[in-house]
Amino acid sequence: MLLYTYRSFDMELPTVDIKDADYIILGLPFDGTTSYKPGARFGPVLIRQATLNLESYILDYDIDIAELKIADAGDVALPVSIEDAIKVAVETIKEVRSINPRALPIFLGGEHSMTYPPVKVLEPKSYVVFDAHLDLRDSYQGSRFNHACVARRIHEMGVKVAIFGVRSGTREEVMFASQSGIEWVHARDYNFDAFVDLVSSLPEPVYVSIDVDVFDLPLVPETGTPEPGGLGFWEVIEALEWLTKRKKVAGFDIMEVSGDRLGNSTSITAAKLLFYVIGMSAR
Amino acid sequence: MLLYTYRSFDMELPTVDIKDADYIILGLPFDGTTSYKPGARFGPVLIRQATLNLESYILDYDIDIAELKIADAGDVALPVSIEDAIKVAVETIKEVRSINPRALPIFLGGEHSMTYPPVKVLEPKSYVVFDAHLDLRDSYQGSRFNHACVARRIHEMGVKVAIFGVRSGTREEVMFASQSGIEWVHARDYNFDAFVDLVSSLPEPVYVSIDVDVFDLPLVPETGTPEPGGLGFWEVIEALEWLTKRKKVAGFDIMEVSGDRLGNSTSITAAKLLFYVIGMSAR
Amino acid sequence: MLLYTYRSFDMELPTVDIKDADYIILGLPFDGTTSYKPGARFGPVLIRQATLNLESYILDYDIDIAELKIADAGDVALPVSIEDAIKVAVETIKEVRSINPRALPIFLGGEHSMTYPPVKVLEPKSYVVFDAHLDLRDSYQGSRFNHACVARRIHEMGVKVAIFGVRSGTREEVMFASQSGIEWVHARDYNFDAFVDLVSSLPEPVYVSIDVDVFDLPLVPETGTPEPGGLGFWEVIEALEWLTKRKKVAGFDIMEVSGDRLGNSTSITAAKLLFYVIGMSAR
Amino acid sequence: MLLYTYRSFDMELPTVDIKDADYIILGLPFDGTTSYKPGARFGPVLIRQATLNLESYILDYDIDIAELKIADAGDVALPVSIEDAIKVAVETIKEVRSINPRALPIFLGGEHSMTYPPVKVLEPKSYVVFDAHLDLRDSYQGSRFNHACVARRIHEMGVKVAIFGVRSGTREEVMFASQSGIEWVHARDYNFDAFVDLVSSLPEPVYVSIDVDVFDLPLVPETGTPEPGGLGFWEVIEALEWLTKRKKVAGFDIMEVSGDRLGNSTSITAAKLLFYVIGMSAR
Repeated sequence: MLLYTYRSFDMELPTVDIKDADYIILGLPFDGTTSYKPGARFGPVLIRQATLNLESYILDYDIDIAELKIADAGDVALPVSIEDAIKVAVETIKEVRSINPRALPIFLGGEHSMTYPPVKVLEPKSYVVFDAHLDLRDSYQGSRFNHACVARRIHEMGVKVAIFGVRSGTREEVMFASQSGIEWVHARDYNFDAFVDLVSSLPEPVYVSIDVDVFDLPLVPETGTPEPGGLGFWEVIEALEWLTKRKKVAGFDIMEVSGDRLGNSTSITAAKLLFYVIGMSAR
Repeated sequence: MLLYTYRSFDMELPTVDIKDADYIILGLPFDGTTSYKPGARFGPVLIRQATLNLESYILDYDIDIAELKIADAGDVALPVSIEDAIKVAVETIKEVRSINPRALPIFLGGEHSMTYPPVKVLEPKSYVVFDAHLDLRDSYQGSRFNHACVARRIHEMGVKVAIFGVRSGTREEVMFASQSGIEWVHARDYNFDAFVDLVSSLPEPVYVSIDVDVFDLPLVPETGTPEPGGLGFWEVIEALEWLTKRKKVAGFDIMEVSGDRLGNSTSITAAKLLFYVIGMSAR
Repeated sequence: MLLYTYRSFDMELPTVDIKDADYIILGLPFDGTTSYKPGARFGPVLIRQATLNLESYILDYDIDIAELKIADAGDVALPVSIEDAIKVAVETIKEVRSINPRALPIFLGGEHSMTYPPVKVLEPKSYVVFDAHLDLRDSYQGSRFNHACVARRIHEMGVKVAIFGVRSGTREEVMFASQSGIEWVHARDYNFDAFVDLVSSLPEPVYVSIDVDVFDLPLVPETGTPEPGGLGFWEVIEALEWLTKRKKVAGFDIMEVSGDRLGNSTSITAAKLLFYVIGMSAR
Repeated sequence: MLLYTYRSFDMELPTVDIKDADYIILGLPFDGTTSYKPGARFGPVLIRQATLNLESYILDYDIDIAELKIADAGDVALPVSIEDAIKVAVETIKEVRSINPRALPIFLGGEHSMTYPPVKVLEPKSYVVFDAHLDLRDSYQGSRFNHACVARRIHEMGVKVAIFGVRSGTREEVMFASQSGIEWVHARDYNFDAFVDLVSSLPEPVYVSIDVDVFDLPLVPETGTPEPGGLGFWEVIEALEWLTKRKKVAGFDIMEVSGDRLGNSTSITAAKLLFYVIGMSAR
């Protein structure tokens, strides 16, 4: 067991030890800076429990992920304050990487603020994020590591940022994006070609973050800051399939799953996304 | 404070007094004639509370509604019987108009029966309504002012009626519509051009009513009489954007938001609609 | 309006300005250190909205609190971190006291960590608290101001602490209590006489805090750290009636109301408690 | 790992291997014959997740169960049919007993039908059960192993049966009980002395089964066949405290926890019961 982790919910998938894995799942159950609907701390357990509902065989890829080497490193026991939580998360991710540096890490949120630690450790060249929000604030409700600031902190690390499915932001964030060369696509303008045009030129490796509130509201009603008018399930899958074929991916995360009802729509959507992400990465 | 109102939920938007406002919000929390799922009385507080989740800046229009002069006149304390509720609502709307006749009034329902008082006071030339139901019954469950009769009562005031997104009505209502020259578009036949064709010829000013059950069911599960197979969020926004550009609007309402859970999908959808309606009207 | 507050939900009670009030209500919607079920940030709005369900006339005291001078100072907009939240809360409570030092302050939580600011400002001689938990930890999940430490911090201010309805604590907390002369009564041993025996000797003024999880679980299912085997509603009311008659009370708070459903059991229980606390204080 | 088990939810309690344990927890997540409200399959994960809410220190016994040797053997992956599920459960319990025959086994339901396998393997002399229902039907909905028949099957194994907290049964079950010398106490007649009188004379060892629907309905709203008018939390604890002092106990189970909401009242009540059962058994 890792220093700060506890085994969350067992996904009934045959799993291997971290050192032998090709894919490593790690939960970051933090929701200390959620502004509207708290509960993202239950995300990691909800996503795993929802996988009981799914076949491990991915029809589209003729791949059964039960035959892959997947390690579930459990959830990190995160302290209450965002700064301490980031420290503990960074330490634990480094510990995982030291045991197995080549496996593809997949993080389960927890708030979008928890995308900062993986990007800090993995040091990707670019950051592709699906999100209803720009998350380019400099600080929010008294914290620079609030979930609403995560894309800005990542940009400041010199990582190239591209945001898809946006339908919420402030004038200040829009101006910061244009001044900083951060490209984003409004949900109303989103289509496959717009995604390919923008991502083709991005340097590798790419860290891919999916804030589930990018999906249309009915798919993910239980999320921290819900927004109507989002993307369809297969729209996002299609884009990820193209990306995992063309670019070296440093890591994935699935963030902002919330609520307290086992098998709620948001956790089912996220669980299906998790299995597809693993399946497409094994093609 | 107005005669019969109480300050519902504070939207954390900077607001001005009624006399200085360009936009006036007034809640009509009545659900006395709801036939299926009661609870629309909570609509006004649910919509306002859901706005905590939203940015006041509208990306699409580069307009921050926090910079506009918005007054929140609170909710009207409505008596139980529909006739008395209409009287009290009419009196309160007249009181608001007497204080400020030029501001754009936006009413938050409450049942669709509460669209009758605003139209009665504002006396628009035409009535554009997004609704899953025709609402052209002569009387229903013993009342001629039931929510299922509101479009007929408005037609009888000599107002030109056009209904979009319909997918429920009786043969009698369909016959009445054709005999009375009331045009409506089935949800299955709805598209932008059908909307423009029909609305272009309507006399001004136009009163615009959005019964949230026009949206597809998953967006608005918590509403009085839910119906599957409705319109998408951006479909309705796009039509309203065209209308607010081409026609003088006498007023708006967002009706039939229900349920009892803070931040439920229906109230999130209605809150986003409210901010976009104000934003597009300020373009 | 106070510096950091926003008007939450209007209780439909006739209210007066802070300077003219005999009773002042202030919401502290913070849940940044909740360990199990987050959502106490919705407490203040849930409690007020639930008062719509209640008569203002208290049968038991033949007192109608609608005839009292009650001010609703709204909710404090609290930053995300516990330390900053305490600073802002202390400042706002001082601001209220400067406007009106003689009125009885009643605070609505929000987590039990928010009892620290009122006690810090009001400087009572003793602290009577109804709680399922001892809350005598020195620090918890990385913070000394965690909700699980609040009684210890208050003890360290030299305030005499007495805890009733306890059914959860660590060995370390039990030892700290016995070494520090902090008396507490287990829920299984609680009765009126045990309360009177212990409270009679306490120095005045007394600050009274009610963590709603003292009540039996079915009354308050929506609370941060629920526990079965608690006290009955009238058991707590009876004790408060005796105390408000015998001792000078510096202030009250009703903490840990959570959930997201308007009119949930916990908020109904808390709203009734709020009206009774005001009514009994006016006898 | 055992043949048919998967590690459910990690209770954050320090645990030991099965062979070294004094207490072994095993989940039997089966709800194949539930007649009214299905969902008991979620019981084991709900109970474990609810323990996150509790201190491991039991005030009443000055015992910290985190210092005890507890093994969590996970949940048994049970097939759909009741007969197969019983076979797999019996095999797994035998496997556990072969690894460690002296530890106290505690089973988490799952339906009350899953009490049959433990009793079959452990072969106690008597069976003390807290239940709102007699469960003495010969067969129900086509199965002799339906949850409503479990007490009859156990009686037929020659085990002395005593049932407490009953408030539901058929005339046929009542006649069978009287003809078979099965004693039971109606919830309305239940008190500590009635329990002691009946249990004192029972032969040892005793298997103790707690169907959570024995508790009063508000404590356990999420259970397979809920019944109003049940026992209080401390009433059952008090009886178990007496029994674990006087009689050799072969095993415990906590059955019929259901629902799908993390931290629902039923799972909180069952989790507290689980910790008290372990604590009292270590006195």
